[in-house]
Formats: sequence, structure tokens, C-alpha cells
Amino acid sequence: MLEPTLKLGLASYTLRTLNLDDTIAATARLGLKYLGFKSMHMPLDSDASQLKTIRQKVLDAGIDLYGAGVVYMRSEAEVNQAFHYAATAGLSVIIGVPNHELLPLVERRAKETNIKVAIHNHGPGDKLYSSADDIHEKVKNLDQRVGFCIDIGHVVRINEDPIEKLKKYQDRLYDMHLKDVDLAAAEGKSVEFGRGIIDFPAVFKTLIAIKYQGIMAIEFEKDGDDPLPGLAECVGYANGLLRLLDK
Amino acid sequence: MLEPTLKLGLASYTLRTLNLDDTIAATARLGLKYLGFKSMHMPLDSDASQLKTIRQKVLDAGIDLYGAGVVYMRSEAEVNQAFHYAATAGLSVIIGVPNHELLPLVERRAKETNIKVAIHNHGPGDKLYSSADDIHEKVKNLDQRVGFCIDIGHVVRINEDPIEKLKKYQDRLYDMHLKDVDLAAAEGKSVEFGRGIIDFPAVFKTLIAIKYQGIMAIEFEKDGDDPLPGLAECVGYANGLLRLLDK
Repeated sequence: MLEPTLKLGLASYTLRTLNLDDTIAATARLGLKYLGFKSMHMPLDSDASQLKTIRQKVLDAGIDLYGAGVVYMRSEAEVNQAFHYAATAGLSVIIGVPNHELLPLVERRAKETNIKVAIHNHGPGDKLYSSADDIHEKVKNLDQRVGFCIDIGHVVRINEDPIEKLKKYQDRLYDMHLKDVDLAAAEGKSVEFGRGIIDFPAVFKTLIAIKYQGIMAIEFEKDGDDPLPGLAECVGYANGLLRLLDK
Repeated sequence: MLEPTLKLGLASYTLRTLNLDDTIAATARLGLKYLGFKSMHMPLDSDASQLKTIRQKVLDAGIDLYGAGVVYMRSEAEVNQAFHYAATAGLSVIIGVPNHELLPLVERRAKETNIKVAIHNHGPGDKLYSSADDIHEKVKNLDQRVGFCIDIGHVVRINEDPIEKLKKYQDRLYDMHLKDVDLAAAEGKSVEFGRGIIDFPAVFKTLIAIKYQGIMAIEFEKDGDDPLPGLAECVGYANGLLRLLDK
């Protein structure tokens, strides 16, 4: 069988109630090869030695530590910290939410470090980037390394079409959050893949068509205190679809 | 969307370390609508009141209690007990392993009660029914109600083709155990769907083509002490495939 073209990974916010070691073990158990850490698993103020230890633990489990986020950047100090953190931990992408006025500094750091910044849309109520279009408006004149982490759940929660956004912003699509939600409205909640309203076959076909090179990071927000069964169901559902779609 | 034609359920041996209530709760959590009990969840010597209480618990969770097994029948008393148990609990099928000399009695009870008997193949080393062909040899001249529970994992473990057996014995196929295994040999072990060697798209296409009316009962034997994540992955994988194949 050919290697699939799409890469399934995990946004570790899913396992926010698990400690670092259990998070790595669960990721390995589910056969996921790509991990993006949220700060409870790799704190933003970790020193270089701590970051290297964490990175090595992930690699030792046969997993690629490719990114981190969502990282909020509300000051120059936080921008500088985020890039130092990412460079030290060997990340290729920061999934971030920079304040608008900090974007010139973010652009400069991205060029200096060659680390991509994938700005994350957060749906209704997010004052900075509620829609992928808000991100586009802010990054279109910046260096190519500043782009998108399209969270398809939040696209649907703001009643927009994830397929359209994935296609439209494919040139700067550096990460994405794979998610199902039960309602195309602000109160829509994360559910197991296939139980909500997102058309996963269409999402995967689109990602294959645009030759998406990044990670599809599963972010399953339900069952925070016992996330593994729901996450496993999402992994199985994605793998079942990809078995037929991605060959 | 049309109702799918195939029905996904659970063989409760998967959850053999969980008690009855936790087994029902886990089945409901995974969205499975059909349950077949193994004896640790519904003991074979339960009295009528106990059986009715257990049945009601399952129904109250929105689940159909359709069968039980694997039930070994090594004496006339065990045959009589199995049919009394199934009739009292309102089951439509007994997944069973009757001794060969008891088949005339099994046939008589099946005709009296109109409860189907699905004889289970157990792969290499099983002296009674190692291959589906062994079952055929014994049931071909019996009443139509005595037929097969084809366990595709054990078919593969004996190095036979599950697609061929499902097609060949479709007229008496009353239950099946859905399973993936990592090796086409006696030492092959149960693994999460999609991680082993069984061609699930081919299995589902075959079941759709033969218009299979029974339950596809997931039997996941790995991780006995912590089966839920692996079982959930199996459920997701099956649902992902069925999303594309069964419309």
C-alpha cells in the first residue's frame, strides 16, 4: 500500500487532564505520529533543558513534535518567548493568536527563525480572529510564513463553509484542527467524528485535492475528564475514511 | 440520509472485565444499538426475574438485546438451559457451540422456540467447529434456523478467506463477529480495526451485497483490562468506512 498523503496528529489540548507522560503514551497507543503541545504539557516558560527533555520523550515514543498551541501573544515579551520556546523545542510551527499590533514583530521573528505561524480562528465571540477571513485580512501582506491554522469546528460554529476556507487559504495553510461539532452556531459543541454535522469525506477530499502538507491535528474537546474513548473513536473514524479516500 | 443497511453491535466478551451496568453504559456511550451478552454479564443460570431485569436495563439504555454467546452446549441439560435462557430474555439468536451429538436436540428446540442458533467457528485447535466449512457439514441437513455466526478473525487465523465464507453461507448467516487480526495464522491476535490484515472495505461490501440482515457484532479481544479506547477505535473505523460504503 502507498503511504497516505494526509497526516493525522493530535492537538494535546484534547488530553488536557492527562500529564505529559500519559499524553505521550496515549498518543502512541492510538498510533498517532504527530503531536502539537498545549502549554499544560510543555509550559511556555520552560527552560532550554526542560524543553529538550520533553522533545526527547516525544521522539523516543516514535512521535514527531511538530508544533505547539494555541499560544496567545499579547505583548512583545510573549512573542519573543513563543519563538524562543519553539526554536528551542525544535518546532516547525506555532499555532498562535497574536494581538494585531504585534503582527509586524511576529513577521520579523518568523523570518529570522524560519518558524511558521499558523493563526487560529476561534469562532463567534473571538475579538481577534473569529473567522478565517479575519486572519486573511491581517496576514495577506505579511511574509508567507505567517498563515493559518484553520479550525474547521470554529468555521462551522460561525456558520461558514470549511471546504471553502480550506481551498481559499491553501497557500498559507500550515496547520488545522480537525473537529466535529453538533451545531452550526455559537453553542455548537465538539463531538466524536461522524456524530456531528461536518462532512468529513468532503474535508478529506479537499485536503487531498489541495495537496495539504501539514498535520490534521485532532482536537476533541468533549469528555475532558475521560477523553481517550472519544478521541480513539475520532482516530478510527478518520482512519476508516482515509482507508478509502487516501491511497 | 438513508438508514444504513448494516447494523453495528457489540459482543460483550469485549468488555469482560466490566460489570453489567458499566457494559451497558459503555455500549450506549459508543452509540452501539445492538448487544449480545456473554455469560459474565448475563449468567446462564439466571432465573426469570433476573433475566427480565437485565433485559429491561438494556432496553432502557436504548439498546436492543438481540443475542447471547458464545454459549457452549455439552449436554442435553445445557441445550435446554440455553433455549430457556434465550426465550426468557427475549433473544432472537443464540451464538453457540453445541456438541455434534446434540444437534438433533438443538434443531428441535430451535423449531419449537423459533430462536435461531448461530454456530461459531473458533479457528485452529477447535475440535468441534474450527472452520465455517465444519459448521456447514453439520447443519446443511438441519432446519434452516440452525446456521452460522462467522467470526472473520478466526476464519483468517485458519488461513481461509472470510469473503468467500460470508458469501457461501449467506443463507444461514445469523450473526457474525467483526474483528481484525494481525496474522493469518493460529497465533494471530485481535487488534484495533484497520491495524491488522483484514480487508474491511471488502467485508462490508460483501455484507451489503448479500443483504445481510443480522448484526455485525464487534469482538475486540485486546486490552482486556482497559478495552474501551481500542473498542472505540474499532467503532469509529467501522463507522468511517460505512459512511462511504453504506448509503
